[in-house]
Amino acid sequence: MLVNCVVYQDGRKLGDIPKEDIDTYIKRSDCFVWVALFEPSLEELLEMQKDFDLHELAVEDASHGHQRPKLEEYGNSLFAVVHDVELKDGDLHVGEVEIFVGPNYILSVRVGTERGFQSVRARCESEPHLLRHGSAFVLYALIDAIVDRYFPVLEGLESRLEQIEEQFFKKNTARSNIEALYDLKQKLMTLKHAVDPLMEATGKLVGGRVPQLCTGMHEYFRDVFDHLQRIHGTIESIRDMQTTAIQVNLGMINLNETEVTKKLAGWAAIIAIPTLIAGIYGMNFKNMPEYDFRYAYPICVAAMLAIDGALYLWFKKIKWL
Amino acid sequence: MLVNCVVYQDGRKLGDIPKEDIDTYIKRSDCFVWVALFEPSLEELLEMQKDFDLHELAVEDASHGHQRPKLEEYGNSLFAVVHDVELKDGDLHVGEVEIFVGPNYILSVRVGTERGFQSVRARCESEPHLLRHGSAFVLYALIDAIVDRYFPVLEGLESRLEQIEEQFFKKNTARSNIEALYDLKQKLMTLKHAVDPLMEATGKLVGGRVPQLCTGMHEYFRDVFDHLQRIHGTIESIRDMQTTAIQVNLGMINLNETEVTKKLAGWAAIIAIPTLIAGIYGMNFKNMPEYDFRYAYPICVAAMLAIDGALYLWFKKIKWL
Amino acid sequence: MLVNCVVYQDGRKLGDIPKEDIDTYIKRSDCFVWVALFEPSLEELLEMQKDFDLHELAVEDASHGHQRPKLEEYGNSLFAVVHDVELKDGDLHVGEVEIFVGPNYILSVRVGTERGFQSVRARCESEPHLLRHGSAFVLYALIDAIVDRYFPVLEGLESRLEQIEEQFFKKNTARSNIEALYDLKQKLMTLKHAVDPLMEATGKLVGGRVPQLCTGMHEYFRDVFDHLQRIHGTIESIRDMQTTAIQVNLGMINLNETEVTKKLAGWAAIIAIPTLIAGIYGMNFKNMPEYDFRYAYPICVAAMLAIDGALYLWFKKIKWL
Amino acid sequence: MLVNCVVYQDGRKLGDIPKEDIDTYIKRSDCFVWVALFEPSLEELLEMQKDFDLHELAVEDASHGHQRPKLEEYGNSLFAVVHDVELKDGDLHVGEVEIFVGPNYILSVRVGTERGFQSVRARCESEPHLLRHGSAFVLYALIDAIVDRYFPVLEGLESRLEQIEEQFFKKNTARSNIEALYDLKQKLMTLKHAVDPLMEATGKLVGGRVPQLCTGMHEYFRDVFDHLQRIHGTIESIRDMQTTAIQVNLGMINLNETEVTKKLAGWAAIIAIPTLIAGIYGMNFKNMPEYDFRYAYPICVAAMLAIDGALYLWFKKIKWL
Amino acid sequence: MLVNCVVYQDGRKLGDIPKEDIDTYIKRSDCFVWVALFEPSLEELLEMQKDFDLHELAVEDASHGHQRPKLEEYGNSLFAVVHDVELKDGDLHVGEVEIFVGPNYILSVRVGTERGFQSVRARCESEPHLLRHGSAFVLYALIDAIVDRYFPVLEGLESRLEQIEEQFFKKNTARSNIEALYDLKQKLMTLKHAVDPLMEATGKLVGGRVPQLCTGMHEYFRDVFDHLQRIHGTIESIRDMQTTAIQVNLGMINLNETEVTKKLAGWAAIIAIPTLIAGIYGMNFKNMPEYDFRYAYPICVAAMLAIDGALYLWFKKIKWL
Repeated sequence: MLVNCVVYQDGRKLGDIPKEDIDTYIKRSDCFVWVALFEPSLEELLEMQKDFDLHELAVEDASHGHQRPKLEEYGNSLFAVVHDVELKDGDLHVGEVEIFVGPNYILSVRVGTERGFQSVRARCESEPHLLRHGSAFVLYALIDAIVDRYFPVLEGLESRLEQIEEQFFKKNTARSNIEALYDLKQKLMTLKHAVDPLMEATGKLVGGRVPQLCTGMHEYFRDVFDHLQRIHGTIESIRDMQTTAIQVNLGMINLNETEVTKKLAGWAAIIAIPTLIAGIYGMNFKNMPEYDFRYAYPICVAAMLAIDGALYLWFKKIKWL
Repeated sequence: MLVNCVVYQDGRKLGDIPKEDIDTYIKRSDCFVWVALFEPSLEELLEMQKDFDLHELAVEDASHGHQRPKLEEYGNSLFAVVHDVELKDGDLHVGEVEIFVGPNYILSVRVGTERGFQSVRARCESEPHLLRHGSAFVLYALIDAIVDRYFPVLEGLESRLEQIEEQFFKKNTARSNIEALYDLKQKLMTLKHAVDPLMEATGKLVGGRVPQLCTGMHEYFRDVFDHLQRIHGTIESIRDMQTTAIQVNLGMINLNETEVTKKLAGWAAIIAIPTLIAGIYGMNFKNMPEYDFRYAYPICVAAMLAIDGALYLWFKKIKWL
Repeated sequence: MLVNCVVYQDGRKLGDIPKEDIDTYIKRSDCFVWVALFEPSLEELLEMQKDFDLHELAVEDASHGHQRPKLEEYGNSLFAVVHDVELKDGDLHVGEVEIFVGPNYILSVRVGTERGFQSVRARCESEPHLLRHGSAFVLYALIDAIVDRYFPVLEGLESRLEQIEEQFFKKNTARSNIEALYDLKQKLMTLKHAVDPLMEATGKLVGGRVPQLCTGMHEYFRDVFDHLQRIHGTIESIRDMQTTAIQVNLGMINLNETEVTKKLAGWAAIIAIPTLIAGIYGMNFKNMPEYDFRYAYPICVAAMLAIDGALYLWFKKIKWL
Repeated sequence: MLVNCVVYQDGRKLGDIPKEDIDTYIKRSDCFVWVALFEPSLEELLEMQKDFDLHELAVEDASHGHQRPKLEEYGNSLFAVVHDVELKDGDLHVGEVEIFVGPNYILSVRVGTERGFQSVRARCESEPHLLRHGSAFVLYALIDAIVDRYFPVLEGLESRLEQIEEQFFKKNTARSNIEALYDLKQKLMTLKHAVDPLMEATGKLVGGRVPQLCTGMHEYFRDVFDHLQRIHGTIESIRDMQTTAIQVNLGMINLNETEVTKKLAGWAAIIAIPTLIAGIYGMNFKNMPEYDFRYAYPICVAAMLAIDGALYLWFKKIKWL
Repeated sequence: MLVNCVVYQDGRKLGDIPKEDIDTYIKRSDCFVWVALFEPSLEELLEMQKDFDLHELAVEDASHGHQRPKLEEYGNSLFAVVHDVELKDGDLHVGEVEIFVGPNYILSVRVGTERGFQSVRARCESEPHLLRHGSAFVLYALIDAIVDRYFPVLEGLESRLEQIEEQFFKKNTARSNIEALYDLKQKLMTLKHAVDPLMEATGKLVGGRVPQLCTGMHEYFRDVFDHLQRIHGTIESIRDMQTTAIQVNLGMINLNETEVTKKLAGWAAIIAIPTLIAGIYGMNFKNMPEYDFRYAYPICVAAMLAIDGALYLWFKKIKWL
């Protein structure tokens, strides 16, 4: 579905054009065309391929989807794949944005995500002195916008970990903590898969040989790279804490059970002693003088209570109960 | 066994030739010969070595088999080893494909795998504008085809992990989960051994000094490299999740036992109390007034039941039962 | 809030100036201006941006805060972010210091930390032969001062680990040790996040292409880099020891419980034997000759005591009690 | 002990010479001398040092022994240390081979291993077209032979792991499995110490600046390097599986004990119920009508059996027994 | 404290000089001065700084102490910090040696270690052909001597691990093994902190751009580097084994307890059965024909013994006892 098709000249919007006119404008070197597609059909993609002379392998990737984030040069043009990650009702939704960039065009293909790039377009149009950099600035603005969307996701996961940590040393929570931590780990992996390859790809725009298209944009892409490094660092430290958290909770999980078993064993000992005494006075020896003693019974029961009381207090003291 | 022996000129098939004619065609610089062998005898290999002037060390590797995936330059020719991995009835079958490539020949040797490369040949022949690139394109097409076969294997392993994860926090599954996870780990290692060295080898065709044979094929090999990186990333994250999964299940496995022990200890306590009471009223003291009380027996039994009932409810409440 | 605004010439203080005069002095190439801000408002920042012609992305970072430590070149100027870490009452407080450096100005922005840089200014002014190096020396002096503040934090964490280690093999401490170790781990991560990116950034001033501004300062930045490496090394080894410490304590935590259960089971056995004997002599067979034997009862009780005494000693010997 | 001292010219053996003649032949640039020593005395070594003008540090290393595998250049000569690893009766024996190579000599010193290099010499002499490469080819042949000896060792360790894996989920094997896995780990470390530094050293003959001596041998050393990489990869994956194996078995080891404890607790419950019933009917209340009922006793015993039978079946069903 | 102050010319000792004469000799380019200090006061250090024109940062480091091992260039001079590690009565003592090297001087500062470098001086003076290399050779000789002192420490730690390993699978040793392993880990970390940074520093003298001072010494520093790599490798493998050792012992530690609990539960079952039988024959039913049977009592006791005997044998067989 075609969302937008606009021509820009010298940092300013010339106007919306029908896609049939792309051909005309693409030939003019003084302006660039910005096309936004949403879940395009194969036909639409092939049409764009013809218009912008896109490389067959890039189009193949875009039509297949499920690519890892990357940034590839095809001659003088770039092909970028970025993941759009959203935390909705506790679940992560991953969409994919493919961006084709040439010297005078930019084509964004959005798949599986409802959030568009109206705000990016608005920002670009409001800063003509930057938009004058051409399609590379739009590429930066798009990636920057998507990367900025990672921050709330990351904060969501961070506060989830904190929630779990608060329940750490409480009783009977170890089992549900582990389930929560395992679930958190899966989410972190998803975010990591969006962030790490993109960081690596952006790093190449900053460090090594920079594609001609992006010259002069060095500080902008470094800014994105820096954001990605920050996210990467935080992901790694959540992962690190969480590994320890799982380990600690696994140690705790059995503890609850063994602790109860210990207490029950303690109570068993407390019951066993009077049982033994009762057993002794149930013996049938003829000659047991206590049997005839008048207060034997109450004294015997009192002794049972006294022994158990002492035992109870002692067990409490040495933490056996 | 000779599967195929075909000559191509300018991207089009000239025709099948008997292997005796290879000599003739190999001398013509305007065409290339594509030979496919299946589990060849040593004689066949040595014949090919003479025809194509293959390096002795490469032929030695091919005849020994059990090579790790690699891509080696011998002067102006290349020698590639690729693993063909298939998931059949839950088991992984690993075959080996050795590919010798020179400026005007390509020789593929398939060992231990039933799946041939008819489809690759068909694809190549249907795209003469690409096949015109010569033997390097066939090399790409072969590797690409094998790499594409890794995806279903990977998906199989991924969905196996998901299956196990669903059973994670169910009772009495920990032990079988661990067996399944250990088995999954072994399969992942096998796939990893096929993927990682190949990724490394392909990376050299993309990054560093590219063998002369492959110049102009950069974007195609980068595509394969990208696929391999994607597979590699997924393998690593399955491995990561699975390490945690094993750890979690190992924590769970003892839990089932200790939990039952705890419950049995609870029941033991419930039985011990009336046993103690019965013991007391089995004592033989002469002076125990209760003995003569008419309703002593039913009251005593009722007391036993009442105490145990209360204990049961209390144990249930504090989760000791 | 403007803390300070001073002009220096040839390593000596010319005098405090109002911020309105910055414009004038910034144009003179023979002196440099050193401005210190504390939690400035956006307006103050924007004013400084205009005065010193700061790059918009750097100012954006400074106004947003929560940056990771870094050192970025913008043309001929540098932008540094450094974390100020303080250990107060057992908690870590992290402040942020942003430093903008140009050939003849240095602007430090301090956020979220009460500790200022009076001592740094004093040190610089007392060493005119060094201050003559200009703004780069002030940059060094600021970073050096902040890095020196990491050492007491690190020592605090180290001695915390030692405290915990001393309690390691004591009874009933495993649980609180784990809580303490988890807390220590979180603090270490915070310090690590301050140190590692800064080390990486400083490393670039030592190893690779050095920004023009910092030429001649190589040995000074190497000194800071060396300090950071030392801190980094110590953090890593605390982390390493602490991972093992958590593992060991998790092993110990269950041990206390199972050990008590074992002892209680031992006592249960000691009680069960005389109970059995008493049970036997409670049987109602007519023909039990012991019943009529005069000393049967005391002998029986003596036997019970003897058996239990022997059992007790034996259990002690084989460490079952 | 001098094993061999032979002169080669143009790839062919000229003949054995006494070591006194080494001096003479070493001066002729058209032939090379191949000397093999077995556990030489210091005198023998010093004699060779004089003959071949070996570097003092290399000779020192050779006389001390216990070197890590390495490959060092001394001017125009090379000094290699390689470990010979043998699996004999389940134990690993590590010998050391030091090789001094110059343009026209090769001196191998074998220490602590009985296996000589007769087969290497035979192979070299049977391939004069390769031996013509001179001493560097002999170096390759020696290293290649030793590396080939690693494969059976590796296979031995692999099949040991498989043996252990087969016993994994069997009862009562966890303890001996762990002993076996720990022992396997020690062996793997020994092999790893032989393989990894050698791989690294050989990698330098393939990748970086190649010593003049070895020019033209690139493909041969790459072949050795490839073998070492294969071994390295397999070692790493055995190590990986084995870490998991130890973890799994440690989880299993306690399981056996807790499982038995659980079952015994189950049986205790089954015995406790009739004990309670018997206790009740041992009470001495005057008014217990059952006492006089004629069939009370058999009915009571039948009830005990019935209850226990039901309990047994139920415990079996819920896997408590 | 000044230990020594000697002038050397052309590899031979000219004679001891008072420190006041250093000035004179330092100006002559044909000889070099070797000064050794032991725990110098700040004044002594500052005097040396003036004599040898040492860099202020290096002197600062030397006066503060507690540096990590390193090797820094200051113009044409070098500053090295090396840790001297000694294993005394089972404890590690770490001293620090700082070495300042210039073209014609070498100044060693020894702090916190009693072992001096008399033997190094003796070795140097006995090899004039090597000492002729000048101060760089003395630097090598000092570092080499300190590195050689690491070997006995390492062997001590290795044999400690072996001692612990021998006690691995013995009963009741797990707890003390863990304490010993934790202690060993701390010692290893200390040694690692001495070795790793020094290895890294020495590596730069071998690999990259070599400081002018050290040219011609390449093979000597490579020898030290090689020793450090060997130590590093051994430390890493001790660490690896020890991680597994801790894991295994932690698994074992609980095992001892649960095993005893299991056995006690087994004995409880053995006692419970005759207790039940005795209970049954303690019932007061009027009509229990066994009561009147003459041999009922011995038969009953015999049955108890028979049942328990059978149970005991069976439990032994299935390893429940």
